[in-house]
Amino acid sequence: MERADIAIIGTGPAGISAAITATIRNKKVLLLGSRDLSEKMAKAHEIRNYPGFPAVSGAELVSAFRRHLDEMGIEITEKRVAAVYAMGDYFALQAGEDMIEAKTVILAGGVVAGKPLPGEEEMLGRGVSYCATCDAPLYRGKAVAVVGYSPREEAEAAFLSEVCAKVYYFPVYAGETDLPESVEVIREKVTALTQEDGKRVVNTEQAKYPVDGIFVLREAVAPGQLVPGLQTEGAHVAVNRKMEASIPGVFACGDITGTPYQYVKAAGEGNVAALSAVAFLDKK
Amino acid sequence: MERADIAIIGTGPAGISAAITATIRNKKVLLLGSRDLSEKMAKAHEIRNYPGFPAVSGAELVSAFRRHLDEMGIEITEKRVAAVYAMGDYFALQAGEDMIEAKTVILAGGVVAGKPLPGEEEMLGRGVSYCATCDAPLYRGKAVAVVGYSPREEAEAAFLSEVCAKVYYFPVYAGETDLPESVEVIREKVTALTQEDGKRVVNTEQAKYPVDGIFVLREAVAPGQLVPGLQTEGAHVAVNRKMEASIPGVFACGDITGTPYQYVKAAGEGNVAALSAVAFLDKK
Repeated sequence: MERADIAIIGTGPAGISAAITATIRNKKVLLLGSRDLSEKMAKAHEIRNYPGFPAVSGAELVSAFRRHLDEMGIEITEKRVAAVYAMGDYFALQAGEDMIEAKTVILAGGVVAGKPLPGEEEMLGRGVSYCATCDAPLYRGKAVAVVGYSPREEAEAAFLSEVCAKVYYFPVYAGETDLPESVEVIREKVTALTQEDGKRVVNTEQAKYPVDGIFVLREAVAPGQLVPGLQTEGAHVAVNRKMEASIPGVFACGDITGTPYQYVKAAGEGNVAALSAVAFLDKK
Repeated sequence: MERADIAIIGTGPAGISAAITATIRNKKVLLLGSRDLSEKMAKAHEIRNYPGFPAVSGAELVSAFRRHLDEMGIEITEKRVAAVYAMGDYFALQAGEDMIEAKTVILAGGVVAGKPLPGEEEMLGRGVSYCATCDAPLYRGKAVAVVGYSPREEAEAAFLSEVCAKVYYFPVYAGETDLPESVEVIREKVTALTQEDGKRVVNTEQAKYPVDGIFVLREAVAPGQLVPGLQTEGAHVAVNRKMEASIPGVFACGDITGTPYQYVKAAGEGNVAALSAVAFLDKK
């Protein structure tokens, strides 16, 4: 894959706006996210303060955004980025089995809802993983647990069931699951992740499930974990008014930069982040 | 006039966005500007990076914004604000002959194109004025000069001609003027304003015009002159990421806060400024 000028992670209003402006400025853009754009936005009942759209449903605004991308020929690459590494004069993005290269990165992946599980951060990289595709080979023939925050994660659990001897699935959402029979679905509230007797243990309110590896799968990864070394403020990326993050060449926009969590604020920041990335590239 | 919760100065994308969000949050909003919204925007040939509107003319986006304001019942008060004074727990806005009171102020008036004239800032308040309606009485029966930056200023010159003995009009634009015969239109390039022998003098490339008072009339007033004591950065208001200016209760958004001069950036900042003003009001 050719090195992109700007890799944009996230397809909500911030990422879309950044992609539009960067494309107009003739940069090679790689927009990474979902072809559905933003599930959260699509579910919004009514949006009244995105100027120009007096009272629209989230689904209608998503459609308008998709039309805008389509008319400009901007494509979406459906990949989830697990980590961004600063390599000196470029960035390497780990996305499933692929490594993607880009000269600059715009973080527009939204905020992680809720706090990490007790023990999650301490055990990250030592038995806890955020990426089934990346780390499945480590657990071939072994037992794993998946804590899934949305139905999308079921595909990851199904994939793991082809490789691992045993897969427990803990859905952190209501509704049916659609999983292979070999996956054991456990509807118990996960309270903590621990290590005991050489095993990793999923603790629920009812019981303990010892396994070899635990996958915690959410829509978004906390920014400090996504980009090692990045300066954060709580769950947010620290940015200045130019949307520059602490690592040169990294920019952020939208909910990931902090409150207010608003569509037009995100779109405005996406525009600024794109122009700052363009200025950064032009200076090089 | 009842004291407003939030006075918003400017009807471009920033002011409109602020008015929409503040109205949704049930604040008493006074939106000050032009019923034409933004002349600059209406003249834009094509806007391609306001997400949701793939390729629109400025006039079309203005129409969409107007429809949004109309559907929410947000009215525009057609007044030009010459100065904003911090009065302790409220603000007094000088608009023509009226004094408007507001608990908070959002500055969204755009940027002043070009630099002040040589001598203009030094003589401000000492023979140089930005407000014909306010200061005309000082020059009853005397000679004044008007440096007008757009055809809109002709109405001010016409008004002055009813009060003053002599009015020179220096248009800083091409095209016809539509003025009473008693106003002397001088198409010479103004180079500086000076004081000589107790008179104020308009210096042009060709001649000198001694008068008693000089009115310099532009679309927007430089922010430091609009709000005495406000911290500025060049032609811009200094703000933080919450769009708070240096005086508590004063917020700014859009081009007035600095580059990039972009519609969606302005709209996003308007949203943030409104929510910060709401938070300020709710804390009081």
